[in-house]
Amino acid sequence: MQLYRSPIVQLLKRSAKLLCQERGLRIPGGMACSRFEYVKSFEQGDDVLQNVWIVIRLDGKGFHKFSKVHDFDKPNDANALNLMNIAAVAVMEEFRDIILAYGQSDEYSFVFRKETNVFNRRASKLLSYVTSLFTSSYVYNWMHCMSKKTLLYPPCFDGRIVLYPSDQNLRDYLSWRQADVHINNLYNTAFWNLVLKSGLTNQEAETELRGTFSADKNELLFTKFGINYNNLPAMFRKGTILLRKRVKIENSLNRQLIVDLHNDMIRDKFWKDHTELLGKYKPGDYVCELENISTVLKHQIDKLNTNEKQENIECCS
Amino acid sequence: MQLYRSPIVQLLKRSAKLLCQERGLRIPGGMACSRFEYVKSFEQGDDVLQNVWIVIRLDGKGFHKFSKVHDFDKPNDANALNLMNIAAVAVMEEFRDIILAYGQSDEYSFVFRKETNVFNRRASKLLSYVTSLFTSSYVYNWMHCMSKKTLLYPPCFDGRIVLYPSDQNLRDYLSWRQADVHINNLYNTAFWNLVLKSGLTNQEAETELRGTFSADKNELLFTKFGINYNNLPAMFRKGTILLRKRVKIENSLNRQLIVDLHNDMIRDKFWKDHTELLGKYKPGDYVCELENISTVLKHQIDKLNTNEKQENIECCS
Amino acid sequence: MQLYRSPIVQLLKRSAKLLCQERGLRIPGGMACSRFEYVKSFEQGDDVLQNVWIVIRLDGKGFHKFSKVHDFDKPNDANALNLMNIAAVAVMEEFRDIILAYGQSDEYSFVFRKETNVFNRRASKLLSYVTSLFTSSYVYNWMHCMSKKTLLYPPCFDGRIVLYPSDQNLRDYLSWRQADVHINNLYNTAFWNLVLKSGLTNQEAETELRGTFSADKNELLFTKFGINYNNLPAMFRKGTILLRKRVKIENSLNRQLIVDLHNDMIRDKFWKDHTELLGKYKPGDYVCELENISTVLKHQIDKLNTNEKQENIECCS
Amino acid sequence: MQLYRSPIVQLLKRSAKLLCQERGLRIPGGMACSRFEYVKSFEQGDDVLQNVWIVIRLDGKGFHKFSKVHDFDKPNDANALNLMNIAAVAVMEEFRDIILAYGQSDEYSFVFRKETNVFNRRASKLLSYVTSLFTSSYVYNWMHCMSKKTLLYPPCFDGRIVLYPSDQNLRDYLSWRQADVHINNLYNTAFWNLVLKSGLTNQEAETELRGTFSADKNELLFTKFGINYNNLPAMFRKGTILLRKRVKIENSLNRQLIVDLHNDMIRDKFWKDHTELLGKYKPGDYVCELENISTVLKHQIDKLNTNEKQENIECCS
Repeated sequence: MQLYRSPIVQLLKRSAKLLCQERGLRIPGGMACSRFEYVKSFEQGDDVLQNVWIVIRLDGKGFHKFSKVHDFDKPNDANALNLMNIAAVAVMEEFRDIILAYGQSDEYSFVFRKETNVFNRRASKLLSYVTSLFTSSYVYNWMHCMSKKTLLYPPCFDGRIVLYPSDQNLRDYLSWRQADVHINNLYNTAFWNLVLKSGLTNQEAETELRGTFSADKNELLFTKFGINYNNLPAMFRKGTILLRKRVKIENSLNRQLIVDLHNDMIRDKFWKDHTELLGKYKPGDYVCELENISTVLKHQIDKLNTNEKQENIECCS
Repeated sequence: MQLYRSPIVQLLKRSAKLLCQERGLRIPGGMACSRFEYVKSFEQGDDVLQNVWIVIRLDGKGFHKFSKVHDFDKPNDANALNLMNIAAVAVMEEFRDIILAYGQSDEYSFVFRKETNVFNRRASKLLSYVTSLFTSSYVYNWMHCMSKKTLLYPPCFDGRIVLYPSDQNLRDYLSWRQADVHINNLYNTAFWNLVLKSGLTNQEAETELRGTFSADKNELLFTKFGINYNNLPAMFRKGTILLRKRVKIENSLNRQLIVDLHNDMIRDKFWKDHTELLGKYKPGDYVCELENISTVLKHQIDKLNTNEKQENIECCS
Repeated sequence: MQLYRSPIVQLLKRSAKLLCQERGLRIPGGMACSRFEYVKSFEQGDDVLQNVWIVIRLDGKGFHKFSKVHDFDKPNDANALNLMNIAAVAVMEEFRDIILAYGQSDEYSFVFRKETNVFNRRASKLLSYVTSLFTSSYVYNWMHCMSKKTLLYPPCFDGRIVLYPSDQNLRDYLSWRQADVHINNLYNTAFWNLVLKSGLTNQEAETELRGTFSADKNELLFTKFGINYNNLPAMFRKGTILLRKRVKIENSLNRQLIVDLHNDMIRDKFWKDHTELLGKYKPGDYVCELENISTVLKHQIDKLNTNEKQENIECCS
Repeated sequence: MQLYRSPIVQLLKRSAKLLCQERGLRIPGGMACSRFEYVKSFEQGDDVLQNVWIVIRLDGKGFHKFSKVHDFDKPNDANALNLMNIAAVAVMEEFRDIILAYGQSDEYSFVFRKETNVFNRRASKLLSYVTSLFTSSYVYNWMHCMSKKTLLYPPCFDGRIVLYPSDQNLRDYLSWRQADVHINNLYNTAFWNLVLKSGLTNQEAETELRGTFSADKNELLFTKFGINYNNLPAMFRKGTILLRKRVKIENSLNRQLIVDLHNDMIRDKFWKDHTELLGKYKPGDYVCELENISTVLKHQIDKLNTNEKQENIECCS
């Protein structure tokens, strides 16, 4: 029960009234604010709660078939994974409020800062734009990454938004996804070795692996195929983490880019090495040797060079 | 207050309990249903209300710049519009429950049957999948439709879901979009004629048109440029309506395809001509002459032929 | 992609800007629009979709115990049911956009017109206000309806909002609730007769009725207790429907009131007798004989008389 | 893309299938799981996000009029405020997961622990039940608190749910409400002194206070009416905070109850004095002298005594 009324509320009411009068007016352009325009009022608000981590996760639709039709290497296709990574870089370049992205298999998660106000935190805008941009970049860069293969039909991804209120929740989310890649990749590695090297049918391989524990699969890989699972590429075992860093490459480069890491996010060490993520946000440094530039970084540097050349051309002309 | 309890509720409770026990179990595969998995419970339901029309509308992001960079014809680029149409056809081919799609400029609306149960009516799934598939097809078909131009960067679209409870609401929504194309296209046609033919700057053309009504712009087009607005291509003036029809082309074809129309949806006639839309759904017939096959239909027929050939090859080999 | 921008959007943006400037101002009254006020932005929109039937259903919490503690007649307590009805009348008197309410046992459903704009269709406002007003009226009128009993503790109700897009959905909802009263009441009538008249324990009565069909229970009531189920009071068998009607009682009254009916809503007849419900809304007539005034009507007429007397007193003084 | 499928998902699918089959079954009781029951599927999920503070705030509807009709003391009616407090105690007694409630004027806020799982965090259940219970208790206790006055019509409250992710957000919310009581109460105290003691009309008093700052109003109260604002009862100036405490009253009582405080929540001191609120929850101690028992505590102790006596009587009989 308030006797006192703030001038803000009064102003708001006046504006609303003015707006309503305006709607009645005939608008220059001949066609009025048409009689059909009421349908716009059926759009419903879907603003995301303030001050929570916003995670958008994309998942490939029907990538089982897609990877088969396009003859992806099994159990992991490094080119296809880097194509995912490069598509994710495009999303991070567009949305400065994404502080981390994490990809594995045919899925990618994007983490927006709690304070982001992009699209006024409208869920459907965020979700659809991220999904569209990722998809578009995936198709656009296909040729570049998968050079020898023709894209036979347009791939697609679905997406979801999940909110995490606390830093611990966010860490647990990323740990969950990274634990998932471990489970799946160990299984898939064993499965495809049985199929491709031992000549088992899919059904037989599945039967062989049913009920086995991690230790059993490690053992099997080592004994049967001489594979030490832990020596497989980190990108396969840990997925790809994308972070913004000031990248320093000897004398040739010093600028903010997006770097790809394949570390363990489940342990504290990762979060201590990258305190900017949960603390006051300021991208850290990343020193890189010239001979160790990743595909993801190379892609960005090439683009920079191309753009600079174009600008030079434009300047001259 | 119920003394009587349905066996269904009891069954449900038992299932839930079983499920909980199961979650505690160590799962074969070595890694348990991990301690991080609780984060999945942060996903929130977003099922769409039953028995309403579901409309998904996509809008090009930054297409003002995109159309400039890619040198689209002004005020309308027929190839670019047909690329939109072909991308929309891909969406309709995937979602059988879309009964109508409507495109104009850089936007496309998809109308799902009220009864659709695709993805259990989960809003984020529907929205993200449609957005992704449309985007993917747009990029994938770029080369085909815009043959002489290189795609310089990946385009993207945002999307939204809007629900319409009654048939009249749905009709008014489509009328709203079609009235919008009229307003915008008439303005744009006048604007670009002033710029391209009379040599006005954008600013001067804008000043010239400020405050004018439809009649004024029609008059200006006719007097200054000899253009009878109503004779311009219907696709420009009315946008494109996609419907499922049994397409009959003389003796060569008789099968269900997606046809593109450019009719007036504001008038009753359209809804009487296509009673399947609001009535009991059963695609109608569409008779087409061989010399009048639209780009959209041709695209589908070509794909059919290619697939058949491939199948023949596969059969033979 | 729009070149043309409506003046409305421009106005809205200007208003928003003004508002932001205003927020920075020191507001007369000493205390600024405080630094804490940002927390208001955490409130999230929950507007109900336009053009759907809004149903709010309230359910008694723990009424099994409540009815026992307050010694309600079993299986039905006419006074307690009329107390529910009178509380519902208070809700309908407050919300003119409720066209029908339906009560049975310890639950009540309120149906708002599709077009209602009360509280701008904000779900939480609607739900909480209806729940509060019903509860308040229930406690307030306890003494009046349950005259000889003391209310021993405050009863309460929970509520939910459900949306129904079509008239058929709404009818089916009401049919569902009315079918429910039938199932429960037949069971309860048999159960309590076995307990109160045959001296069975609750457990024994439950065992006796397990697996029986409607016909069995009707038979049991007739054979064992001489009860023809269909002759029991309609309020017990059908629940109570509240409708707005112009009530005419011989020469004494002619005004719009809320009448209680106990008809079958499952059959078409009800909807033909009250065409105002699904058609153009205009309350129908209800002719009532002086000797047949229901408790619900009497309650309203008494209140009218009291108010008129008060007004007379106030006028005179 | 997962080759490995968890047994949980498989179990869930099997349960769903079983459930569907069950729905088709004729259920003992004569009336099937009726053909109308599909309408239940129109109920939509509204679970509150996990791990956030849940605040429910109730506001009196039309309490300006209500307080006038019931002749509340102006600017504050201690009895009416304590009636609010006692109604809030009833809510806290029911919901053990409310750790703090805060009331001022005709509003009350209830704070649920972040981890609460009451009603599975369903927003509409939580909101409607809290609103109903508060309302019910308000009416039920009216007689007791406002002894000499008759309740002339049923009062009611609306409610809303707001979520706060961080502890700081929650503190700022409570600070916002407490800053609000300060602004309003200082204004109201000045206003009503002008009206009641200086004989100004409402309009004149409003004019007198327009544009004044806090210091001005303090000065006015002191100069004109000899009132030192800071000496007014803390309940009027600070509102009422309800906390769970182990209450120790000399030798007569030692048990957990709900205590009413009127402290400053804006300062850190409050949160240091009651570390249980934001830390590991365990109610603290509250030592009270026999002569200083508040109305709120007395109400609870009286109820305890009554219940114990009743139990003794029941035991003896």
